Amino acid sequence: MKNKEFKTIALACSHSSERVLNVAKDCYKILIQEGVEVQVDQSLEKLLSGQDTCNKEDILENSELVISIGGDGTMLGIARDFGSKGLPILGINLGNLGFLADLDPADISTRLKEIISGDYKRDERSFLEASIKGREEKLIALNEIVLHSGNIANMIEFDLFINESYVYTQRADGLIVGTTTGSTAYSLSAGGPIIHPDLGLISLIPMFPQSLTSSPFLVSDSSIVRIVIKNNIETSKLNFDGSTSISLEKGEEVLISKAKSDLNLVHPQNHDFFDSCRDKLGWGKGIVKG
Amino acid sequence: MKNKEFKTIALACSHSSERVLNVAKDCYKILIQEGVEVQVDQSLEKLLSGQDTCNKEDILENSELVISIGGDGTMLGIARDFGSKGLPILGINLGNLGFLADLDPADISTRLKEIISGDYKRDERSFLEASIKGREEKLIALNEIVLHSGNIANMIEFDLFINESYVYTQRADGLIVGTTTGSTAYSLSAGGPIIHPDLGLISLIPMFPQSLTSSPFLVSDSSIVRIVIKNNIETSKLNFDGSTSISLEKGEEVLISKAKSDLNLVHPQNHDFFDSCRDKLGWGKGIVKG
Amino acid sequence: MKNKEFKTIALACSHSSERVLNVAKDCYKILIQEGVEVQVDQSLEKLLSGQDTCNKEDILENSELVISIGGDGTMLGIARDFGSKGLPILGINLGNLGFLADLDPADISTRLKEIISGDYKRDERSFLEASIKGREEKLIALNEIVLHSGNIANMIEFDLFINESYVYTQRADGLIVGTTTGSTAYSLSAGGPIIHPDLGLISLIPMFPQSLTSSPFLVSDSSIVRIVIKNNIETSKLNFDGSTSISLEKGEEVLISKAKSDLNLVHPQNHDFFDSCRDKLGWGKGIVKG
Amino acid sequence: MKNKEFKTIALACSHSSERVLNVAKDCYKILIQEGVEVQVDQSLEKLLSGQDTCNKEDILENSELVISIGGDGTMLGIARDFGSKGLPILGINLGNLGFLADLDPADISTRLKEIISGDYKRDERSFLEASIKGREEKLIALNEIVLHSGNIANMIEFDLFINESYVYTQRADGLIVGTTTGSTAYSLSAGGPIIHPDLGLISLIPMFPQSLTSSPFLVSDSSIVRIVIKNNIETSKLNFDGSTSISLEKGEEVLISKAKSDLNLVHPQNHDFFDSCRDKLGWGKGIVKG
Repeated sequence: MKNKEFKTIALACSHSSERVLNVAKDCYKILIQEGVEVQVDQSLEKLLSGQDTCNKEDILENSELVISIGGDGTMLGIARDFGSKGLPILGINLGNLGFLADLDPADISTRLKEIISGDYKRDERSFLEASIKGREEKLIALNEIVLHSGNIANMIEFDLFINESYVYTQRADGLIVGTTTGSTAYSLSAGGPIIHPDLGLISLIPMFPQSLTSSPFLVSDSSIVRIVIKNNIETSKLNFDGSTSISLEKGEEVLISKAKSDLNLVHPQNHDFFDSCRDKLGWGKGIVKG
Repeated sequence: MKNKEFKTIALACSHSSERVLNVAKDCYKILIQEGVEVQVDQSLEKLLSGQDTCNKEDILENSELVISIGGDGTMLGIARDFGSKGLPILGINLGNLGFLADLDPADISTRLKEIISGDYKRDERSFLEASIKGREEKLIALNEIVLHSGNIANMIEFDLFINESYVYTQRADGLIVGTTTGSTAYSLSAGGPIIHPDLGLISLIPMFPQSLTSSPFLVSDSSIVRIVIKNNIETSKLNFDGSTSISLEKGEEVLISKAKSDLNLVHPQNHDFFDSCRDKLGWGKGIVKG
Repeated sequence: MKNKEFKTIALACSHSSERVLNVAKDCYKILIQEGVEVQVDQSLEKLLSGQDTCNKEDILENSELVISIGGDGTMLGIARDFGSKGLPILGINLGNLGFLADLDPADISTRLKEIISGDYKRDERSFLEASIKGREEKLIALNEIVLHSGNIANMIEFDLFINESYVYTQRADGLIVGTTTGSTAYSLSAGGPIIHPDLGLISLIPMFPQSLTSSPFLVSDSSIVRIVIKNNIETSKLNFDGSTSISLEKGEEVLISKAKSDLNLVHPQNHDFFDSCRDKLGWGKGIVKG
Repeated sequence: MKNKEFKTIALACSHSSERVLNVAKDCYKILIQEGVEVQVDQSLEKLLSGQDTCNKEDILENSELVISIGGDGTMLGIARDFGSKGLPILGINLGNLGFLADLDPADISTRLKEIISGDYKRDERSFLEASIKGREEKLIALNEIVLHSGNIANMIEFDLFINESYVYTQRADGLIVGTTTGSTAYSLSAGGPIIHPDLGLISLIPMFPQSLTSSPFLVSDSSIVRIVIKNNIETSKLNFDGSTSISLEKGEEVLISKAKSDLNLVHPQNHDFFDSCRDKLGWGKGIVKG
């Protein structure tokens, strides 16, 4: 019997729709057939009849890989919950965009066997981590942390510092502080560049800035980004990956930097970043001849 | 004595700061000296000691011009309140951007006399008007009506129709439906073109759309814009000139079109749209040598 | 027999490839069957064995419609040659983008019969016309007139005036002066908005301007655009629809305005501008679910 | 006497205007007073009466620093000529944009003394190097290498590969392959992000691409960029820093990568990248109140 790279694997999702459950069932069977121990996360409790699901702590302690079933949104949550604690993540893509979750459900039988036997690509990504001066909590994001006024068409005014160098005072709907991973997500819609996952950097993209000269800009991911909120918008917020939000007070300071632990993504061997760009973004479309 | 173009003029503001009050005092004196009857709006009650201010109905009935003291934001409100009812508006600019309010406080003595005597430029602008299918209220905007998800980084999905032609189904943070006047305001920050005030059109600018091919587009201002909200975002809103907001339910339909009445702006004779662009947007900056 | 809207129709192309010739042959047959007199332009001389083709003057005098066989590029040339002299143009689309030429070759039998019998949509478009001060020649464009330095990465410096109002002094690779029709062509690649064909306006889009605040801007198509070239670039040129070019000298002045005669486009009844946008630009793409 | 960091310093320019000569004279005096040996480049021969200038080889052998007098354009040429051979470069800024040349002529007395005594900031930048497959010559650029069709509004079609991964087939006016240094120059006009000089990466920005989804993208500066020209444009060219151009044939392959040697820029101690952004790009402008 072949040596197995991953002896215990967890299955997780965000919404257990019928389609997700069907794919989860297929995964479960394949993994069991291959002699892998399977831990089913509470998010997939419908998968099991009678059996117990595993809680987060149990998975973190015993699993060597988490398979995320859903789209990139599901993957983001699972990456923050498990990936940030050191567990590698593999994504089966049921969504319409799949830069993170890239295993096609049609291929899972072949691909899962390859991956279990160690035939896969590893891809290390950084998280961003934000804290509010004087508060204890720290939250992380894989794609982007967004400072915003809480209301579209309502400007927030803030001072921005990089490593204690003053950058500018900006008035805008908000500011996107993004990772390399996030460059194909919200940052892209906001006019940011696409960034190869190999690169270690932080992108800063003002949202609808009052000043037209405020292009997106990029700094090293060893930078500390400090934002001081200046105006009296009681609704201003800090949002993580389009999910959790924290409310901010006037004059509060936000500190954002690369998180200590990285994310280990697991991809099938045929994974290629530029393939995803062509496929997902339609790169090169419009040149096919009639 | 010279014939007067405006025999009764109202003064109004949004926030009666000391600076606004000082300028209002100067205006008041000049107008009285020139034999003009002055109506003081309730927003400027601090201007008068003992005397009564006028309410909106009184001003609408008796004044022939409203002078807005503040910035473009103040002007927007006064334009919606008085301008949309047919009263011409003149703006004294105390703010940092002044496409609408363009009378420099340093020049008011000379300029006000010229304007009172009929020596001014008239500039007609359109309002947009929105209604929600099945509801009675109608609200107007001079710059833009913004449909948004109510949360940044939270996509709204909607179908868009122009004159009952299906345009597209879009997923985005929102949609800016803008006027020619609004083209130098929020629409500009969102990547829209600058549009000469002479032109009659409506601009449609998706905000951070998921699809990169969704450029801003422009249709005639005789068009009816219909938006059908498709996804279940309970927070989605319709915002008018960055001020009033209406909450929307899933499946509700928004109808936007040019309002029946136009705004008459009064400008000093030296007013020039391209001057404002150079001055306010810094057009041509970056080419000054050494 | 039905009354015919077009009794004499000309066929023309730009490059008579095998595919073009096959489609031309089909058209020819259908038109003859329908009792239409067909004039074959010299560009399609391979179509005829033995018979004479018609020259431009003959077609202008006798035809009531020209059918352009090719893509939008072909259509542009035929529109300038015949359309600007008053002849309506219909385009059969063999190319990969088809905002102008929109008759699908698969449908020509049905569609041509409908069009001949008067069942079609008419769509009026404007040309731009440029002249150089002190020179006699005038050239026209349907999409855009481009002033450029003749070398990419080589800045041209020019003063821009609209109706004798000074706009700005710009340093850029060039300036695109575009029509509504051109808004889905080169202007779009340069960051311009998409403009509904109903609108009468001229767009001005600096190409890679040194100043970041120089957004595309739009003026009425009754405007006269005057450009004065200031720097000593011996290679600077004026280009029409990506085809003909004129060389310019330092200090020369270019005048651009709407041409006197319009273009009459003939579309099949199912033509819809927003359909083309969705189909050709991929509007709404990226939202189809997995 | 203080220890000198630079015992021999060369002075150079591109165009020896009167202003350049005056600043060069001041520099010369200060350097001599400080006991520095001065080498005058042939570009500044007007500076000397009777004395001999030094040729490039002599400077490369004996000088320890070259002072560039002019703007960023001058600096680019001197960086390619001397900086790429290992000589540190200091720029006195007489131009209108100064990201590279940042010593203000008004401060040269104080600043030069500080720099001579070793009190300065060092800033390492990368060059890009291009070769054409099958040809021997190699050319370098500090800002960007531009592949273009040779004619604006004339599309070039090419295949792009990064480290032998196929990226896309693109139709565009050209492609800007830029450095971090170039991110505040031509790349910025073309919609690219601003990149902090600390970062090691290559940016790829299509110029007016036919496909709207082709955002600027960034790859590691250890990448090899390979471009294969596909269409038969006889005028296509490769341009270096807006200066030297090479003509390309159909089917030729261009290879671009980071050059082996880096550029050592010398800055005064008060140099700060974000200061330059605010000063030169007008960051934060438009928020100053009335």
